[in-house]
Amino acid sequence: MPHKARRHDYKSHIIEEYYITEEPFYLSLKDEIQLFEAAYAERIPVLLKGPTGCGKTRFLEYMTYHMSKKLHHTTAQSESARSHDGIPLITIACHEDLTASDLVGKYLLEGDVTRWVDGPLTRAVKSGGICYLDEVVEARKDTIVLIHPLADHRRSLYIEKKGEMIEASDSFMLVISYNPGYQSILKNLKHSTRQRFIAIEFTHPPKNIESKIIEHEAGISHDVAEKLARLGEKIRNLKEQDLAEVISTRLLIYAARLIKEGISPRRACEVAAVWSITDDQEVQKSLKEVVTAIFE
Amino acid sequence: MPHKARRHDYKSHIIEEYYITEEPFYLSLKDEIQLFEAAYAERIPVLLKGPTGCGKTRFLEYMTYHMSKKLHHTTAQSESARSHDGIPLITIACHEDLTASDLVGKYLLEGDVTRWVDGPLTRAVKSGGICYLDEVVEARKDTIVLIHPLADHRRSLYIEKKGEMIEASDSFMLVISYNPGYQSILKNLKHSTRQRFIAIEFTHPPKNIESKIIEHEAGISHDVAEKLARLGEKIRNLKEQDLAEVISTRLLIYAARLIKEGISPRRACEVAAVWSITDDQEVQKSLKEVVTAIFE
Amino acid sequence: MPHKARRHDYKSHIIEEYYITEEPFYLSLKDEIQLFEAAYAERIPVLLKGPTGCGKTRFLEYMTYHMSKKLHHTTAQSESARSHDGIPLITIACHEDLTASDLVGKYLLEGDVTRWVDGPLTRAVKSGGICYLDEVVEARKDTIVLIHPLADHRRSLYIEKKGEMIEASDSFMLVISYNPGYQSILKNLKHSTRQRFIAIEFTHPPKNIESKIIEHEAGISHDVAEKLARLGEKIRNLKEQDLAEVISTRLLIYAARLIKEGISPRRACEVAAVWSITDDQEVQKSLKEVVTAIFE
Amino acid sequence: MPHKARRHDYKSHIIEEYYITEEPFYLSLKDEIQLFEAAYAERIPVLLKGPTGCGKTRFLEYMTYHMSKKLHHTTAQSESARSHDGIPLITIACHEDLTASDLVGKYLLEGDVTRWVDGPLTRAVKSGGICYLDEVVEARKDTIVLIHPLADHRRSLYIEKKGEMIEASDSFMLVISYNPGYQSILKNLKHSTRQRFIAIEFTHPPKNIESKIIEHEAGISHDVAEKLARLGEKIRNLKEQDLAEVISTRLLIYAARLIKEGISPRRACEVAAVWSITDDQEVQKSLKEVVTAIFE
Amino acid sequence: MPHKARRHDYKSHIIEEYYITEEPFYLSLKDEIQLFEAAYAERIPVLLKGPTGCGKTRFLEYMTYHMSKKLHHTTAQSESARSHDGIPLITIACHEDLTASDLVGKYLLEGDVTRWVDGPLTRAVKSGGICYLDEVVEARKDTIVLIHPLADHRRSLYIEKKGEMIEASDSFMLVISYNPGYQSILKNLKHSTRQRFIAIEFTHPPKNIESKIIEHEAGISHDVAEKLARLGEKIRNLKEQDLAEVISTRLLIYAARLIKEGISPRRACEVAAVWSITDDQEVQKSLKEVVTAIFE
Amino acid sequence: MPHKARRHDYKSHIIEEYYITEEPFYLSLKDEIQLFEAAYAERIPVLLKGPTGCGKTRFLEYMTYHMSKKLHHTTAQSESARSHDGIPLITIACHEDLTASDLVGKYLLEGDVTRWVDGPLTRAVKSGGICYLDEVVEARKDTIVLIHPLADHRRSLYIEKKGEMIEASDSFMLVISYNPGYQSILKNLKHSTRQRFIAIEFTHPPKNIESKIIEHEAGISHDVAEKLARLGEKIRNLKEQDLAEVISTRLLIYAARLIKEGISPRRACEVAAVWSITDDQEVQKSLKEVVTAIFE
Repeated sequence: MPHKARRHDYKSHIIEEYYITEEPFYLSLKDEIQLFEAAYAERIPVLLKGPTGCGKTRFLEYMTYHMSKKLHHTTAQSESARSHDGIPLITIACHEDLTASDLVGKYLLEGDVTRWVDGPLTRAVKSGGICYLDEVVEARKDTIVLIHPLADHRRSLYIEKKGEMIEASDSFMLVISYNPGYQSILKNLKHSTRQRFIAIEFTHPPKNIESKIIEHEAGISHDVAEKLARLGEKIRNLKEQDLAEVISTRLLIYAARLIKEGISPRRACEVAAVWSITDDQEVQKSLKEVVTAIFE
Repeated sequence: MPHKARRHDYKSHIIEEYYITEEPFYLSLKDEIQLFEAAYAERIPVLLKGPTGCGKTRFLEYMTYHMSKKLHHTTAQSESARSHDGIPLITIACHEDLTASDLVGKYLLEGDVTRWVDGPLTRAVKSGGICYLDEVVEARKDTIVLIHPLADHRRSLYIEKKGEMIEASDSFMLVISYNPGYQSILKNLKHSTRQRFIAIEFTHPPKNIESKIIEHEAGISHDVAEKLARLGEKIRNLKEQDLAEVISTRLLIYAARLIKEGISPRRACEVAAVWSITDDQEVQKSLKEVVTAIFE
Repeated sequence: MPHKARRHDYKSHIIEEYYITEEPFYLSLKDEIQLFEAAYAERIPVLLKGPTGCGKTRFLEYMTYHMSKKLHHTTAQSESARSHDGIPLITIACHEDLTASDLVGKYLLEGDVTRWVDGPLTRAVKSGGICYLDEVVEARKDTIVLIHPLADHRRSLYIEKKGEMIEASDSFMLVISYNPGYQSILKNLKHSTRQRFIAIEFTHPPKNIESKIIEHEAGISHDVAEKLARLGEKIRNLKEQDLAEVISTRLLIYAARLIKEGISPRRACEVAAVWSITDDQEVQKSLKEVVTAIFE
Repeated sequence: MPHKARRHDYKSHIIEEYYITEEPFYLSLKDEIQLFEAAYAERIPVLLKGPTGCGKTRFLEYMTYHMSKKLHHTTAQSESARSHDGIPLITIACHEDLTASDLVGKYLLEGDVTRWVDGPLTRAVKSGGICYLDEVVEARKDTIVLIHPLADHRRSLYIEKKGEMIEASDSFMLVISYNPGYQSILKNLKHSTRQRFIAIEFTHPPKNIESKIIEHEAGISHDVAEKLARLGEKIRNLKEQDLAEVISTRLLIYAARLIKEGISPRRACEVAAVWSITDDQEVQKSLKEVVTAIFE
Repeated sequence: MPHKARRHDYKSHIIEEYYITEEPFYLSLKDEIQLFEAAYAERIPVLLKGPTGCGKTRFLEYMTYHMSKKLHHTTAQSESARSHDGIPLITIACHEDLTASDLVGKYLLEGDVTRWVDGPLTRAVKSGGICYLDEVVEARKDTIVLIHPLADHRRSLYIEKKGEMIEASDSFMLVISYNPGYQSILKNLKHSTRQRFIAIEFTHPPKNIESKIIEHEAGISHDVAEKLARLGEKIRNLKEQDLAEVISTRLLIYAARLIKEGISPRRACEVAAVWSITDDQEVQKSLKEVVTAIFE
Repeated sequence: MPHKARRHDYKSHIIEEYYITEEPFYLSLKDEIQLFEAAYAERIPVLLKGPTGCGKTRFLEYMTYHMSKKLHHTTAQSESARSHDGIPLITIACHEDLTASDLVGKYLLEGDVTRWVDGPLTRAVKSGGICYLDEVVEARKDTIVLIHPLADHRRSLYIEKKGEMIEASDSFMLVISYNPGYQSILKNLKHSTRQRFIAIEFTHPPKNIESKIIEHEAGISHDVAEKLARLGEKIRNLKEQDLAEVISTRLLIYAARLIKEGISPRRACEVAAVWSITDDQEVQKSLKEVVTAIFE
C-alpha cells in the first residue's frame, strides 16, 4: 500500500470491494504462515495474540492476499468469491459500544422505504470473507455470544431482526485478536469463547527484520533503518512501565519519514519515539539518552 | 454434521426449518438418554449442568433427532410438528443484552406496513420445538422471569406487546443449561427458577470415549486420537487455574485436524491446546512438557 | 389444571379471558381462606408472604375461582364481570426491567394507525379482576409507586400517557407477593408500600398435606407420595445453605412423575431433588444419603 | 370518601376534574391549618415533613377543600378556577424514573396527528391547582430543578419542548413532602431547593385523635377503635427497628375493618399489624405479645 | 417584581420576550456593578461565585435591566436587540439530565411536518441576550464543552444537528454561576472551562443591607426586618453543619410575610427558618433558642 | 481574529466554510512549525500535548492558514480543496457523550424526506481538512476506535450506517490533543491509539513572548503587559495545587482588558487571575500578595 497511491480525492466504496489487490509487504517470522494455511484448510477459527502494532493486521492482509490467489486457481471455490478477485478482508475494531446490530445489520429508513442493510459480519458471512474482529475483548457480551455459532461446527449466524439463520459461505473464516498484556478480570475472553479458537502468538519482529520493514516502508537508507530498529529493541528492553508495547514498528517508521523530510534524527526520534510514548519526564530523559547513544 | 456438507455458498433459512435430519454422532455416558426421555414424556423442563464444551449441545441435538423419529410414528403428535420432519431444535445463546422482545418478538416496520415477527421462543412455543436456552445465567432477569409460566403447569407464554397469552404446543419442551463453575453471587439461578427444572449433570467424557469422538470427528488415526485424549485427561488433572474447563474435546479435535493437514503433532498441540487456553508463560511451559511427554 | 388438558396445539387467547373455570386443587392449611375473604369483602389489598413454590399462586387461583362463583350469585356484581364467567386473575411476574408502561399500556403503531393497548394492570382495573404482582420487590420503583393510588382509599390508576385517571371497577383487588428470604437492603418493600397491605404468611405444607398433593398431582401411589413428602421434610430440616426453600412441592411432584415413567426412585430423586437444588458436591452427598435412607 | 361510593364500574376522568367535592375527614393536631392558610395567602411554597401514613395527604385534601370553598366566595378568584368547583388537587408520587416530561408534557402521536398533552404539573400551573409532589427526594435532579422557578418570585414553568414560559395562575400553589427518616447522603433535598419552602412538621396523631379516626373510617365501635389506637401507640414506642413508621393509622383501620368482617381481633391485628410490618420472627413475637396484652 | 403583579391567570409567553421591564430591587454591596460593566464592555464571560440564595440571580436581573437601558441610547446596538426593549435575560438551571440538545435545539415533529426549534442557548446567541447558566457544575460534560467556543475568541456555537456554526450576536454575553461550597472531586469545573471566565465573588448581604431587603420585599416594619436580619446573621455564625448556606435572605422574607399574615413571629421563624433548614432535633433546639432570644 | 470584527449580528455559516482567511497572531516558541510541516508532508497524524490555554488551538489555526497558502501555490492540490481558499480547520471538542454518529453523520428526517447529514469528521475527510479532536481522552471508546483506520496506512473512515468506506482526501490530516496533567487510569489514551501519532509537546510561553501576546491581544501598554506576564510566571511557579495550569495566557489578557476599561490593575487581577482560578481563601491570599508585589 504505497504512500503515493493516496494522493487523490476521497473515494467512497462499498465494503464488499475490500479486496487486497497488491501483495502487502510482510516478512515471515516463524511458521505462522503454515499454521494459518492449515487452519484455513480446516476452517478452524483463529485467535491472533500479541501486542498492539506488532504486525497482526498486516499478517492477515498478507494471508488474505495469498489465500485469494490460491482460491482463484481452485475449482472448488464458491460462486460469490469467484465473481470478485478473491476473498475480501473485513476488519471490525471492537469496542464497548459496538452492538450486535452494528455487526449483523439494521433496517434503515430511506424516505418512505425501509431497507435492510447487512452489517459487516453478515457481509463477510455471505461473501465468504475473512472476518477479523480486532481487540475482541473490548466487545460487549452480546457481540461475542453472536459469533459462537459461527465458531463451531454450525458455522451459522442468526439474524434476529429477520428471524433468519445464515450458513456461512464456504470461504468464510473467523479471525479474532487480542492483546494478552491488556487482559484483566473485567475484560477477559470467556472460556466458552476461547475454546472455539486455536491461537497463534506474535511478538515484535527481531531487529534484523524490523530494520528491513522500516527501510521498505519509509524509503530510508539501510543505515538509518538499522539504527531505528536498534532503538526499538533498546526501548523494548527497558523494563520501565509498558514501553515495550507502545514503541511499535509504526512509530519507528514515522521517525524515519520525518528524517526523510529533513528533521534531524535526534529530534525525529524525540517526537516519534519519546514524547509519543510517555508523559513521564524521568522516562523521557532515559529515552533521550538511548536516542543520543544511537544517533550521536 | 460432516464438514464436507458445508462446502457450498451461504444459505439463509427461516428458523422453523431447523430440524436435525441426520443422526448426530453421540456416545452415551450413563443413563442421560433414559432420564431425558422420561422428562420429555412428562414434559418436565430440564436443566443441563456441566462445563463448556463437554457435549451438552450435541446431546440435545441427538435427543431431538431421536424424539423426532419417535414422534413420527405416533398418532398423538401435533399438527404443526407432523407437517415437518419432527421437532425443531431452537438454540438461544443467552447474554446480558438479550431482551425479552428478542425472545418473544417485535413489531417491525417494512416500508409502510408494520409486521409482527415472532422471536425464537415464540416460534418454539408455537411449533412445539425444543427450546434450548444456553448459559441461562447470563440472561437478564426479565428473560428468566419470562420463562417461568412456560416452566410450570401453565406452559404458557405471555406476549406483552400483543396482550396475548399463548399455550405451548404439546411437543414443546424447555431446556436450559448452565456451567456450575461460573456461578457467582451476581450470576446465579434464582430459587424460583431452579425449582422449575430437574437437572442432569455432565462432565467431560472419559478418555476411551473422548478418543473415539476425536477419531470420528477429525478423521484421524486411532493412535493419534488416543494420544490426544490422553493429553486432555492430563491437562484436566493439572490443578493449575481452571484449565480443566478450557481444554474441551473441541480443541483436541482441532489439534487432530491440524495434524491431518500436515502440522507436526507437537506444534499442533501447542497452537490448539496450549496457546489457546492460557497466556501465562509458566503454565504454557508445563503444558508443553505434557505435550512432549505424549508426542515424544 | 390436569396435565392431559394440554395435549393439543398451541392456543393464543387474549388476557381478559383468563378465567379459572375448573376448581384448582388446593388443600387449606389454616384460616388463610377466611382471611382472604374478609380482606376481599373490604377490598383491602393483600400481601402474600412465603418461600417460592409453597403454593401462593395456587391459593390465589383457588380463591379467584370461589370468589367468581360467589359473585355469580350476587346481584351487586359489576356489569363487566357478569358478562364473563366471574373474576379474571391477572398475574404479573415482576422484574427489574418491567416498566410502568408495560403495566399500564402503550400506544402501538399498526400500519399507519396508532392504537392504544391497555397493559395487564389497566385491564385488571377496568375488568374488575384480581391483579397479582408476583415477587413485587423485583419491580422497579416506578412500578411500585404506580400502584400506591390503587392500594389506598383512592383505588385509582393514573394513565400518564393519556392524562387519565381510572377508578377501579368494584370487583378489582390488588394482591402482591414476596419472599422474605430474599429481602436485602437493596431490594426491600418501602414503608410507604408495605403499610398499604395486610399480610398473610405461607410456609411449605406439612408432610401429610404435601403427600396428598403429590399423590393427586403426579397420579402416583400413596406410598411413594408419602416417602417423597418425608424426603421434602427432611431436606428442609437440613440447615445447609438455603435448601429449605429450593425443595418445593413442585420438585417432589417431578420426582414422582419420573418414577411413574419408570425411572428408579433413587435416580429420580437424584435428578429432581439433589442435582436440581445444589451444585455443591458435599451437600449433594448428604442429600443422597437422605434419599437412600428413605428409598432403601 | 366512603367505601360504598366505590361500588360501581370503573370510571375514567381527566385529571382537571380532580376536585375535592366532599369534606374530607380530618382532625386538626396543632396550628397546621393556620400556618397553611397564611402560606397560601402569601403563595409561599410549603414542605410537609413527616413519616409515611401520618396523614399529610389527607391534610392537603382537607386544606384544598376549604381553600376551594373560600375562593368560591371571593371575587378575586381566577377565571379558570371559578368555572369549576374550586381548586383542583394534583398529586404526583415522585420516583427515580419520573422524567421532566412526565411532569411537563409531551407530544403524542395519534394516528397521523401529533398532539401536545400537558403533564400534571403544567395542568396544575394553568388551572391554578395545588400541585403536590409526594416524596420529592425520590425524584430525579431534573425534576427538582424544574420546580425552582415555580418556587420563587418568578412563579413560572419553562416548557422546554415548546420553548414557552408559563406564569402560574394566581391560585396555583406548590407543596412538596418528604420523610426525614429516609434522608441519606444520596437522597437529600439540595440547599437550593430547601430554601424555597417553609416547612410544617407532622407526626403520627396522638392516641385520642387516632382512635376517633379509626372509629370514623372503619365504622367500628369506640371500644375497639380505642384499643387499636393504644396498639399503635405501643408499637411506635417499641424502639425495635423502624416500626414506628410502618404502623400507620391506615393499617390500624385495616385491622378494624377485618374485625368488622368477623375476623377475631387478635388474628386481625396479626395480619394487619404484625405480619404486614415485619418479617423478623423475634420482632413478630414481641408484637404479638403487645396484641395479646390489649385484646386479652 | 412585586407580588401583586402575579394576581392574574396564567400567561404563556415565548422566551425571547423575557425582558426585564421594571427595575429590580438591588442594593449594591461593593464594586460588582463596575466589574460587570467592564466585563460586558469587553464581552468577557463572567462566573458568579457564591452560596445559594445570596442574590446572584437578582444581581443579574439588575445588570440586564441597566445594560438594556444603556444599549437603548447607543447607536452601535444590534438590529435584533433594538427591535425589542433591550437585552433579554435567559436563565438555564443546570442539572445532570440537561442534554446538549436541550440547550441548542431539536427537530420536533408537528403533524407531518418536522420543525426545528431553537433551544434557549441558541436563542440567546441569536438575539444577543445574556445567557445565564445557573449552577453550571451540575451540568453534564457535553453541555459544558458546548459553551467553550462561546467563551473564547470564537464566540460561536456549533449546532451539530444542522451542521451549522453560529456567531453570537454582538450584545450576547455568557454568565455562569456556581457555589464553591458544593465543589467536590466529582463535580468541579474543569480547568479548560474555568480559564475562560473572570470571577466575581458574592456572599450573603451584611445585616444592615439584608434588613432593608426584607423590609422592601415583604412590606414589613423596619423593626421586624431588622430582627430577622439579626436572626440570619446569628444562624450563619453558628458553625453547625452548613446552616450558613441554607438560611437565605429568601427564607427570612418568608418569615416576614407569615408574620404579616398574622402568624406570631416565633412560630413564623420556626416554620420558615428552623424546620425548613434542618431535620436534626438537636440543631432545631439551638435554633429555636436563637429565635427566642431575638423575639422574646 | 480582532475583537472589532465581532460587532455585528449573529451569522450562521455551514462548517465547510471554516477557512482561516486572516493570519492568526502566533509567536513561534521552538521548532514546532518545522515539525508540523514535516508531519503534514508525510501525512503522519499528530498529537499536541500540553496544558489548557497554552496556545495549541492558536498554533493549529496558524499552521492551517500557512498550509492553505502553500497548497494554493501547488499544482498537486486536490480538487475540493482548490475550489475554496485552502484547507478548512474542523475542531471537535471531545466529551463523554459524543457519539460515533455525532462525528460521522446521521440520517435526519425533514418533513417526509430522510436526508443523510455528514458529521464534522466525515466532512473533514471528504473536503481534505485538518480535523482537530480537542481533549481526545474525554471521548468515548467508540469514537477513538473510529479514528484508528484514519490514523494508519488505511487513511479511511467506515460509515457504518451507510455501509460505506471513505478514503480520506489527500489534504486531510488528523490532529488530536490532550493534557498530560489530566491523565488518569480511567482516562488515558490506549496504546493502540497512541502509537498512531507522533507527539509535539507545548508549555506556557516564556515571559517575554507572553508579554508580547498580551500586548497584542488586549491593546494594552507594554509596561502593563510585561507586569501581567511576570504575574503569570510567578503564579505558575507557586507549587500550590495545580495553579500552574489554570492561569492561562487568556486570563492575563482578560485582566489587561479590564484594566483598559478602567478597572484598577490590582482589582482586575483579583477578578481575572485570583478568584477565577481558586476557591481556597488561603491560596487567594498568597496570590493577592503576588499581585500587590507587582502592581504596588
